Amino acid sequence: MSSLNRELSTDSAFAAGRNSWNRHYHNSVVQPLLTDLYQITMAYAYWKSGKIDDHAVFDLFFRTNPFQGEFTIFAGLEECLKFLDSFHYSETDIEYLKHALPQGIEDEFFEYLSQLTAKDVTLYAIEEGSVAFPRVPLIKVAGPLIIVQLLETTLLTLVNYASLMATNAARYRMVAGKHIHLLEFGLRRAQGPDGGLSASKYSYIGGFDGTSNVLAGKLFNIPVKGTHAHAYITSFTGIDELKTRVLQHKEDGTTRDLLELAMEHRAAIASVLDVSTDESSEGELAAMVSFAIAFPDGFMALVDTYDVKRSGLLNFCAVALGLNDQGYRAIGIRIDSGDLAYLSCLARETFERIAERFKLPWFSKLTIVASNDINEDTILSLNEQGHKIDCFGIGTHLVTCQRQPALGCVYKMVEINNQPRIKLSQDVGKVTMPGSKNVFRLYGADGHALIDLLQRVDENPPEVGQKVLCRHPFQESKRAYVIPTQVEPLYRVYWAEGRVAQVLPSLEEVRERVQASLRTLRQDHKRTLNPTPYKVAVSDNLYNFIHELWLQNAPIGELS
Amino acid sequence: MSSLNRELSTDSAFAAGRNSWNRHYHNSVVQPLLTDLYQITMAYAYWKSGKIDDHAVFDLFFRTNPFQGEFTIFAGLEECLKFLDSFHYSETDIEYLKHALPQGIEDEFFEYLSQLTAKDVTLYAIEEGSVAFPRVPLIKVAGPLIIVQLLETTLLTLVNYASLMATNAARYRMVAGKHIHLLEFGLRRAQGPDGGLSASKYSYIGGFDGTSNVLAGKLFNIPVKGTHAHAYITSFTGIDELKTRVLQHKEDGTTRDLLELAMEHRAAIASVLDVSTDESSEGELAAMVSFAIAFPDGFMALVDTYDVKRSGLLNFCAVALGLNDQGYRAIGIRIDSGDLAYLSCLARETFERIAERFKLPWFSKLTIVASNDINEDTILSLNEQGHKIDCFGIGTHLVTCQRQPALGCVYKMVEINNQPRIKLSQDVGKVTMPGSKNVFRLYGADGHALIDLLQRVDENPPEVGQKVLCRHPFQESKRAYVIPTQVEPLYRVYWAEGRVAQVLPSLEEVRERVQASLRTLRQDHKRTLNPTPYKVAVSDNLYNFIHELWLQNAPIGELS
Repeated sequence: MSSLNRELSTDSAFAAGRNSWNRHYHNSVVQPLLTDLYQITMAYAYWKSGKIDDHAVFDLFFRTNPFQGEFTIFAGLEECLKFLDSFHYSETDIEYLKHALPQGIEDEFFEYLSQLTAKDVTLYAIEEGSVAFPRVPLIKVAGPLIIVQLLETTLLTLVNYASLMATNAARYRMVAGKHIHLLEFGLRRAQGPDGGLSASKYSYIGGFDGTSNVLAGKLFNIPVKGTHAHAYITSFTGIDELKTRVLQHKEDGTTRDLLELAMEHRAAIASVLDVSTDESSEGELAAMVSFAIAFPDGFMALVDTYDVKRSGLLNFCAVALGLNDQGYRAIGIRIDSGDLAYLSCLARETFERIAERFKLPWFSKLTIVASNDINEDTILSLNEQGHKIDCFGIGTHLVTCQRQPALGCVYKMVEINNQPRIKLSQDVGKVTMPGSKNVFRLYGADGHALIDLLQRVDENPPEVGQKVLCRHPFQESKRAYVIPTQVEPLYRVYWAEGRVAQVLPSLEEVRERVQASLRTLRQDHKRTLNPTPYKVAVSDNLYNFIHELWLQNAPIGELS
Repeated sequence: MSSLNRELSTDSAFAAGRNSWNRHYHNSVVQPLLTDLYQITMAYAYWKSGKIDDHAVFDLFFRTNPFQGEFTIFAGLEECLKFLDSFHYSETDIEYLKHALPQGIEDEFFEYLSQLTAKDVTLYAIEEGSVAFPRVPLIKVAGPLIIVQLLETTLLTLVNYASLMATNAARYRMVAGKHIHLLEFGLRRAQGPDGGLSASKYSYIGGFDGTSNVLAGKLFNIPVKGTHAHAYITSFTGIDELKTRVLQHKEDGTTRDLLELAMEHRAAIASVLDVSTDESSEGELAAMVSFAIAFPDGFMALVDTYDVKRSGLLNFCAVALGLNDQGYRAIGIRIDSGDLAYLSCLARETFERIAERFKLPWFSKLTIVASNDINEDTILSLNEQGHKIDCFGIGTHLVTCQRQPALGCVYKMVEINNQPRIKLSQDVGKVTMPGSKNVFRLYGADGHALIDLLQRVDENPPEVGQKVLCRHPFQESKRAYVIPTQVEPLYRVYWAEGRVAQVLPSLEEVRERVQASLRTLRQDHKRTLNPTPYKVAVSDNLYNFIHELWLQNAPIGELS
């Protein structure tokens, strides 16, 4: 697999100017108007009712893990912080709002909006890239009611898809295993020109190794990968079209005709591969020779344009042997159709035969990339059948999150002016946890996470070695004592006093955090089929608080 | 329903500056690097093989209609043309590519790239907003092989999601019927910050009436709508919190205490509504009064925070009657949970009772908006049950296209240097139609579209009143004579000689085109359950051409 790293990829040291490109892209779309109109009408109504100094706390959380799984990867935090940092209504925004809102809005309100920033907001969050669970707020935002309300839609937009995508990617990584290379190929099927950019970024965070999306490479410094499409192969009809055939030797500089070398090898190996040269495509051979001349150090070829067995593999091996004569090692092949289990085994067997015949051990390790409509189930099925694929290129199912295309994060008020707020619902799962809370992750002796515990902010944190009563938030009889061997406070202050309050990790570090965080989860929470739910509990104190408020707020029905 | 137009909406006359905002947004993300890396490696390999002057034709088409339907709306064309117009690698793009591509690429290639534009490309397309069918190329691109290949990914990205979204929206419009107002509320569940912008734009094109997305309003001049969220209601605990209660009369300017008016009305109408004032929420009343004071002409209230029947409707009617005392007419209510059929009928009945009791006929016509997890099936089920909803606010299912989150448009080479190319496949559905083609839509005497006919470009177009032989592209025996009463050539040249070659329609015109085009389709092609496939045929000449090429290119197998 290490050979894949030689393939057409970015130089990760190249970062000059990246921040400014990134900032330009970010600012152009993530701005205070990227919101629902009702946030602004509410802001006016709050303002008009004199609620300028009201102070509120909102929780951003989801209620169900996606993809019938039992974990979610939290992502999008850095973008949220950039949004807070740049939060400001421009002159044209105000101009637009004056026209978009009904007539009669007082001018002072627009004055107020034009001065508004996130300087009085405090944002707490769990670390980006952490595993997260239903009902545990990923983000807690405290500050003046109006500004905190105005942040809702944009924060949800930034967290929902980012977390869904990172979770999806992490699931692909789990089923593929850690030694398989995973590439994101989804740009053409993403939600528009830039839905694709988010897909590339967050699939990388979730555990993919690279993307085909060049702009994502430029903006986020993600490795970019790619070779050629079927069109490249079919653009050549025969060997006569080859205008350039000459290739210099990598070491000694002597030149040879690569087409000639390849044709000699082709004649010699046809019998080794148990095929006839007559059945192989000359256009394909010409295309591969031309590609090898362009990228002698990065020769990876698509072999399924005509027939993998009878044409693609034969031509590929012939060209790869020609390159070898001139001091170069080919990278491998891509298969984009057909029975991937069978064809990958056939390819590996072919490579092994050539390796043995020509005493070229590296030939047996050539990379096999597969890329046709891959999803989690395809990979599981391939694993079951046995395959020899080193790398999957995954598009549509990855970027659209076909199995569940939305994560339902919500943003709920839990406190206003120090008074707790509870949202009741017929559906217990939709009842919110009132008040400003802290969250702790308790670990067992084997290092695995046991439970997430929500407490009221004025409670003492759980202590290592001390018994803690953990309660189900709604089922009275479900209680357990836990004696943690490690207690991790999940929240940090990420934004306070008008600035980012933490040194933010790099994209690489967030990506590593994902894998590290997943390792703390027991395998049964992560398995594909019927995973065990991870427990989220409340302290006894918070339990009583919730249920008192519930009784105070719930109307007493009348049977009639 | 006309009252809804008075709701918080944009002034459509406001367009100053919009083009420059739009252009800024567009340029920041739609650029030549928004592509798969393999397009650029192929470009280098073509360049290196001396294929600079090769001329190619590519077709952009899909193979299956989305959503188990039998039609697709073509959208995204204007964005494609803007992309061609701005196609140019910037200095930082070239700088990035030098690092992203393998070492050893010749400098002259980067020179070549930095000079490259779309000036030699000709782009044909069917009209944006038209109904379209499998295998009929939506776009045909002809020009130098390298540039035409480099356009692939970006064109697919721009067309795939746009067409999927417009089709989805058009389907919602069909099931909802033309008198229902449809609003897109999906920003928070879209693919990242700007997937949401595409969703807003193309759902409007597909037949929605507006969006909640303010930035989409600013950029695309789409009506934006919205009132308040549950958080607004729960931010008020009681009437003591109301700092402003006074409302001027709309006409005579006299002031009254709106809270007092509302409380008097509430006491008086409780019995009319068959509920008790004790059970209604005072916080909700306070929130509605404050909102009505902020938007006396645009009062639309969320009524399901506590209990629609016992609290929300009572408080709403009380405030609406108070507003009426001061010369204002309320807009209506929004219901965001519960049994939408039942609650909407209950609300309408309530409004009718008030209308009668207070001799206010308009009260019975108040708008009822529903917005909880709506999809096509929900609307069909509501239609079946009977409901009194005037407007649906639709988010997740609309913008994620949950039922099928990707349209599989592909971009295939059909000709190079005047030689046709055919892509063969075991799967007949994947065989491409070779050569540069024209497409005609033939209409019957009743004005409905009968069939789309593909021809080779050098054939004479079908003529009105003349018998045309239409053949199934792959099934020899499936043939039919058609005598069209109208023949519509589907292609126009949209880009030639380095510029847009048509006066482009406005967003409104594209939106109207969608409905006009849908009207030409027979109802049985459009129905939800088991729709009849619309026929796409080839001329006898094209049929023979395809099958000759097929035989020339297909290898003769050996049974062994």
